Amino acid sequence: MDDRFVAERYRNRSVGLTLDTQALSRYGDVINLSIGDTDFTTDTRIIDGARTDACAGYTHYGDPKGDPELIEAVCRAWQEDQGEAIPSDQVLVTASSCLGMALTMMAILNPGDEVLIFSPYFTMYREQVELAGGRAVIVPTYAHEGYAIREDRIRAAITPRTRAMIFNNPNNPTGMAYGEDTLALLASIAQEYDLVVAADDIYTFYFFEGSYRPIRCLPGMAQRTVTLNSFSKNYLMTGWRVGYVIAPPAIIQTMNAINGALCYSTPSVSQRAALHALSLRQELRQTYGQLYRQRVSYSAQRIQEIPYLDLCVPRGTFYLFPSVQKTGLSSAEFCARLLEEAHILVTPGSVFGAEGEGHFRIACTVGQEVLREAFDRMERLKF
Amino acid sequence: MDDRFVAERYRNRSVGLTLDTQALSRYGDVINLSIGDTDFTTDTRIIDGARTDACAGYTHYGDPKGDPELIEAVCRAWQEDQGEAIPSDQVLVTASSCLGMALTMMAILNPGDEVLIFSPYFTMYREQVELAGGRAVIVPTYAHEGYAIREDRIRAAITPRTRAMIFNNPNNPTGMAYGEDTLALLASIAQEYDLVVAADDIYTFYFFEGSYRPIRCLPGMAQRTVTLNSFSKNYLMTGWRVGYVIAPPAIIQTMNAINGALCYSTPSVSQRAALHALSLRQELRQTYGQLYRQRVSYSAQRIQEIPYLDLCVPRGTFYLFPSVQKTGLSSAEFCARLLEEAHILVTPGSVFGAEGEGHFRIACTVGQEVLREAFDRMERLKF
Repeated sequence: MDDRFVAERYRNRSVGLTLDTQALSRYGDVINLSIGDTDFTTDTRIIDGARTDACAGYTHYGDPKGDPELIEAVCRAWQEDQGEAIPSDQVLVTASSCLGMALTMMAILNPGDEVLIFSPYFTMYREQVELAGGRAVIVPTYAHEGYAIREDRIRAAITPRTRAMIFNNPNNPTGMAYGEDTLALLASIAQEYDLVVAADDIYTFYFFEGSYRPIRCLPGMAQRTVTLNSFSKNYLMTGWRVGYVIAPPAIIQTMNAINGALCYSTPSVSQRAALHALSLRQELRQTYGQLYRQRVSYSAQRIQEIPYLDLCVPRGTFYLFPSVQKTGLSSAEFCARLLEEAHILVTPGSVFGAEGEGHFRIACTVGQEVLREAFDRMERLKF
Repeated sequence: MDDRFVAERYRNRSVGLTLDTQALSRYGDVINLSIGDTDFTTDTRIIDGARTDACAGYTHYGDPKGDPELIEAVCRAWQEDQGEAIPSDQVLVTASSCLGMALTMMAILNPGDEVLIFSPYFTMYREQVELAGGRAVIVPTYAHEGYAIREDRIRAAITPRTRAMIFNNPNNPTGMAYGEDTLALLASIAQEYDLVVAADDIYTFYFFEGSYRPIRCLPGMAQRTVTLNSFSKNYLMTGWRVGYVIAPPAIIQTMNAINGALCYSTPSVSQRAALHALSLRQELRQTYGQLYRQRVSYSAQRIQEIPYLDLCVPRGTFYLFPSVQKTGLSSAEFCARLLEEAHILVTPGSVFGAEGEGHFRIACTVGQEVLREAFDRMERLKF
């Protein structure tokens, strides 16, 4: 392929985490556990609400910072759920929290600034940091330590150029959920070194132990936290591309200005859908929180019965991140054999950073019968 | 405001082209001619089609390169309209052509590469070039020359670092439309210097003289052209945020990879809406092409009767870009007075580059009765 017009930094680069359409088409009976997208269609009430609003005229740009009604509803929901009042100038609606994270990095990083990323990590974090001219500094966590975030490793990674840390709770891909101790540790370090915390809080309905607490709610943290929320996972709305950011006004304004050169505004019909979704949040949290918890729990049990796998049992999300170290294969080799021999598509752990190597990610986003079939197939394999 | 967490390059920066909500709220009877957003709600058939598809399951990520049915429909429409076959790997669906342009710049620019921009220009081009680490090099055009793109000025702007030119036809904000002579000139220069042409072709239904010809259809141009198309203006779908890019496969793949860290995929419901819109394109082009042409023609006539204004009559888009030089005021001063004294919100030409100074932009995106009222108010003013 003629790539002479492609910028040098992008030549001969792997594509990263994306839908492997080629793999899916190789066999007629592939079970796809590779993408973090629910198997449920968005609730009809949300779709119909969005349609009615679109017909009433919500097909225009609207305010680029977000539909004022949606922002108001976000603030109200936050007040109800977290007991914290959020002024409307601290909210920006974004066309996905993925875009929200990219905008955050662009808004806060000077060239060469460093961002701490706990590994294994969602693949795009590194791209987002680098796209903004920053440098990703990896802080490892390990399955054999329950993916604990350790103070000594954070301190060893901090330099005078450290500007922010990205904290994803509960975590994609490990499924680990972090409680008060970790939040307090990160808050204390962020304040000691005057860091921004970019908190990727997009799986909060899938938090299996206790109730979810956002790091921005810890004392002294609101002024230095960028909270990224999304309707994709919690509200089964991946295809609508709508999320929101809560952050100090100066960061929000900068992100909005940068977004003027990217998406400009978030799809207005999607924003109306999000508004209707928020009004159903107790019901959706209850229903799907429980459902995914059951699936993850079932999957964990099945994985623990498979002799060539090991698992650090998830405490959140809909992901499991088993180890394949007993097979002696690399992540990529194992996943290739799983596709060839069992027609199961999963994601090699190496995609999530060096600490993901030796693992693979299962997205529990198929029904329990399909999950059963997948684990039956895996059980029949020998390594 | 505490901006210590904001990257240095964004501190104390003006916001650029965006909805001035503060100005709008100052008076009860403001006529808003400042935003390029149609006054029509998207056609109900499009909304209903999207709703049906959403209920049928189109609420998921889908292929990040775009809904395969939409891509197929885009290729079919292009074949019908331009007589050129486009392979599907040369199409990327993007969450607006604004994002498409940003991705183009990120995909092709090495740090310090230069991009030619004809001024006056859509404000975001410069941001998009700079966000990608490039440098915008302005090639001026002037009202008294009919906004002609002149070869001598292009040649004077080219350096060994020139990598691309952005060509917007018809042009926002000037309303100028360029024909065969200009296309041939740009194609010849692009080939002579091995440049990419980023062709912002988003107002093609509003091309008042002859039929629209995309620059990528000129001999030798398909391999070096990135064509940006959008449903926003042509299909009255600004709020859906969906556009598409036609470009060589290496550029498409790179843009898709970069977009993985931004929006990841384009809203699937919006893509279904776009698919339905495409099937109505002859009707919409006919209806709204004619309607906006009438509005622009009416506005041009009214402006020519106002003694303190001058106008280079538009040949496309729904914008007019009158000169206020006779008033002796700057663009910003004139616009402030227009708001205060006539309650009309327009955009100062200075927003569109130095060559826009001394002008203001009218977006003809209100009904003819409102336009009449706006010009009646302007006519009563004295400078």
